[in-house]
Amino acid sequence: MKHVKRTGFMSGIVTLTTDFGGADGYVGALKGVILARFAAARIVDLAHDLAPGDVPAASESLARAAPLFPPRTVHVAVVDPGVGTARRGLALALGEQLYVGPDNGIFSGVLELAGAATARALENWGLWRDSVSPVFHGRDIFAPVAAHLAGGGELRDVGPPIALESLVRLATPAPSGDAAELRGEVVHVDRFGNLVTNLRAPEGAAAWLEVEGRRLPLSRTYGDVAPGALVAVVGSSGRIEVALRGGSAASHLEGGRGLVVILRAPRESD
Amino acid sequence: MKHVKRTGFMSGIVTLTTDFGGADGYVGALKGVILARFAAARIVDLAHDLAPGDVPAASESLARAAPLFPPRTVHVAVVDPGVGTARRGLALALGEQLYVGPDNGIFSGVLELAGAATARALENWGLWRDSVSPVFHGRDIFAPVAAHLAGGGELRDVGPPIALESLVRLATPAPSGDAAELRGEVVHVDRFGNLVTNLRAPEGAAAWLEVEGRRLPLSRTYGDVAPGALVAVVGSSGRIEVALRGGSAASHLEGGRGLVVILRAPRESD
Amino acid sequence: MKHVKRTGFMSGIVTLTTDFGGADGYVGALKGVILARFAAARIVDLAHDLAPGDVPAASESLARAAPLFPPRTVHVAVVDPGVGTARRGLALALGEQLYVGPDNGIFSGVLELAGAATARALENWGLWRDSVSPVFHGRDIFAPVAAHLAGGGELRDVGPPIALESLVRLATPAPSGDAAELRGEVVHVDRFGNLVTNLRAPEGAAAWLEVEGRRLPLSRTYGDVAPGALVAVVGSSGRIEVALRGGSAASHLEGGRGLVVILRAPRESD
Repeated sequence: MKHVKRTGFMSGIVTLTTDFGGADGYVGALKGVILARFAAARIVDLAHDLAPGDVPAASESLARAAPLFPPRTVHVAVVDPGVGTARRGLALALGEQLYVGPDNGIFSGVLELAGAATARALENWGLWRDSVSPVFHGRDIFAPVAAHLAGGGELRDVGPPIALESLVRLATPAPSGDAAELRGEVVHVDRFGNLVTNLRAPEGAAAWLEVEGRRLPLSRTYGDVAPGALVAVVGSSGRIEVALRGGSAASHLEGGRGLVVILRAPRESD
Repeated sequence: MKHVKRTGFMSGIVTLTTDFGGADGYVGALKGVILARFAAARIVDLAHDLAPGDVPAASESLARAAPLFPPRTVHVAVVDPGVGTARRGLALALGEQLYVGPDNGIFSGVLELAGAATARALENWGLWRDSVSPVFHGRDIFAPVAAHLAGGGELRDVGPPIALESLVRLATPAPSGDAAELRGEVVHVDRFGNLVTNLRAPEGAAAWLEVEGRRLPLSRTYGDVAPGALVAVVGSSGRIEVALRGGSAASHLEGGRGLVVILRAPRESD
Repeated sequence: MKHVKRTGFMSGIVTLTTDFGGADGYVGALKGVILARFAAARIVDLAHDLAPGDVPAASESLARAAPLFPPRTVHVAVVDPGVGTARRGLALALGEQLYVGPDNGIFSGVLELAGAATARALENWGLWRDSVSPVFHGRDIFAPVAAHLAGGGELRDVGPPIALESLVRLATPAPSGDAAELRGEVVHVDRFGNLVTNLRAPEGAAAWLEVEGRRLPLSRTYGDVAPGALVAVVGSSGRIEVALRGGSAASHLEGGRGLVVILRAPRESD
């Protein structure tokens, strides 16, 4: 592994986001490879219990956390149902962060948030493990490339530059309508059963959120309603969420991704 | 952030105890904020799979682990169903440890164990993130305050002192009766289905534990009974537990918190 | 604790593999004890969601990950249903790694992979916590011994040497038959529902795997078959696995450990 002079600028932090769970040794394998190649790496678990193959949830999870890290942290994301097929491996520089993983849309969320970005395809097998399993690129390609970058290796060493436009992106549904009636949908369900929508907080006057025939005022926080009641709040990512105080809105409404929500401006009569 | 001269006395360790689970980016968000503000922090996961909003289990979990850490470790605990309401945020110095989290009883367990203690309300918003979401104080208040303390910042900087008597404490049921017949109850169920009671090991002669009409001798360890049998042992926290060898006592007895247990001294006729 | 001059050769890394889960404070207790005794330890979580008491899965998990770590990493493994009984505690030096845990077969997988090995029984209670709970040797014996080793303490300090032949090993079923028809079985089911068998990749010509009356060609990776189809691949540990693209082969076949698989060489007529 090459150690270039930029080491002083690295955080040395490598984060991991996977659907590998907490029972098999897959997460441990990534960690072993990274530490064996860059002994000073500081490995930080972001999320390992993503549903198997759930790339949209991984994208969401990564976007919530990764941009908050110190500059030049390396984020490895491996939810990779297409492992071993023709899908590319990527290294991205987005804002001040670095990302490594498959080109399957997992970086859609962070690409949306980032400013300047550059992308490279992982083609320099000189950085990889000597033997690459077609079913475990996390261990054999992504982890060694992350160790290279975390140790101060150059991004350009990983492979050729590719156009940002060529990256796979998840289709994110756009809200439709106007300020009087904005139609959106649930794009993510979290552990609490909170339904995260694609609608952002309205400017100006208070508003109502309609979901499954119910009309919820926009509240500040969960505790603003009675236990067991539904509540709409502006979530911690700036998007409107439907929650149930002391329970799961997803279970209560039997709804998940794709559930329609409508944001209405208050009328004179309200 | 202020870096005072006490840095040499800090462990630099920040532990995290939450109900955020392992799929959403919430845990990662806390870690990013802490590392961005105190790059040398050594983050240690204690528990993230607590049942949503289960403050008593969080208190139990924290009390089992936190007091074992090196002096001046900072423990962040966020099981916080009242986030954004009038409930206070706290920083506590208990024994040689520091704690940060909501004033909702989550520190009841460690308060019981600790010697000298001081408490402060989190009111110095100068330490917080610039924008505070009413639904994610973990990221926007507790994590930055923990970074401040872990980096050697003064406890007095976080906000005004408050009386220990004013802290929210969970009601812990006290055993009743006497040495001949001590009545207690299950206060915690662990992952193995072990039922942890509020009864401590009796001094002197061996004794019987009665639970759901069964009479169990106090044994040393699980393997002292046959596979599939119930067993009462003194658990690793010093309290009597009911376990099932090779299975779950909670499932077998269909019981959990509140289940009554009775400790009887052996009679002449036993 | 003794700090010997070999500290320079230690990785300082301590990995943890347990069935303690992510809600109770048991994992945190191990971490606290290790850090309190060896402040510079770098603790790395391998797996904590192993099914309670599932020693074979723990052995599998450890074998996948531990050998990849830097030399002189200390691996603590605690899936320990026989805690407090006469079963021994062990410290092993296998290849360049160190292991600490119960003598119940949990190290079977790494023992199979390792070259030179030495084993010692944990009998030097001077290294342990002052008070040892019969139901939590992880906290009171294994964690302190791991801290001793990670901090550069001598292996010989932990207790007397014992013969490798005396260690408990899990019975691993051997394949039977010949190159024309090799009969094996499923030995592990992973989080994705992939069925890992005890058959290694055949040399030479392509082959068929028979499972539950189905005949699957050996493919390179999951994406080589249509969504919803079963596929046989050489897994990342070098053994043949049965997977279901986009789903769980274990659920689809309603099979797990012990399920029979047959590897057939292609015939002229194929």
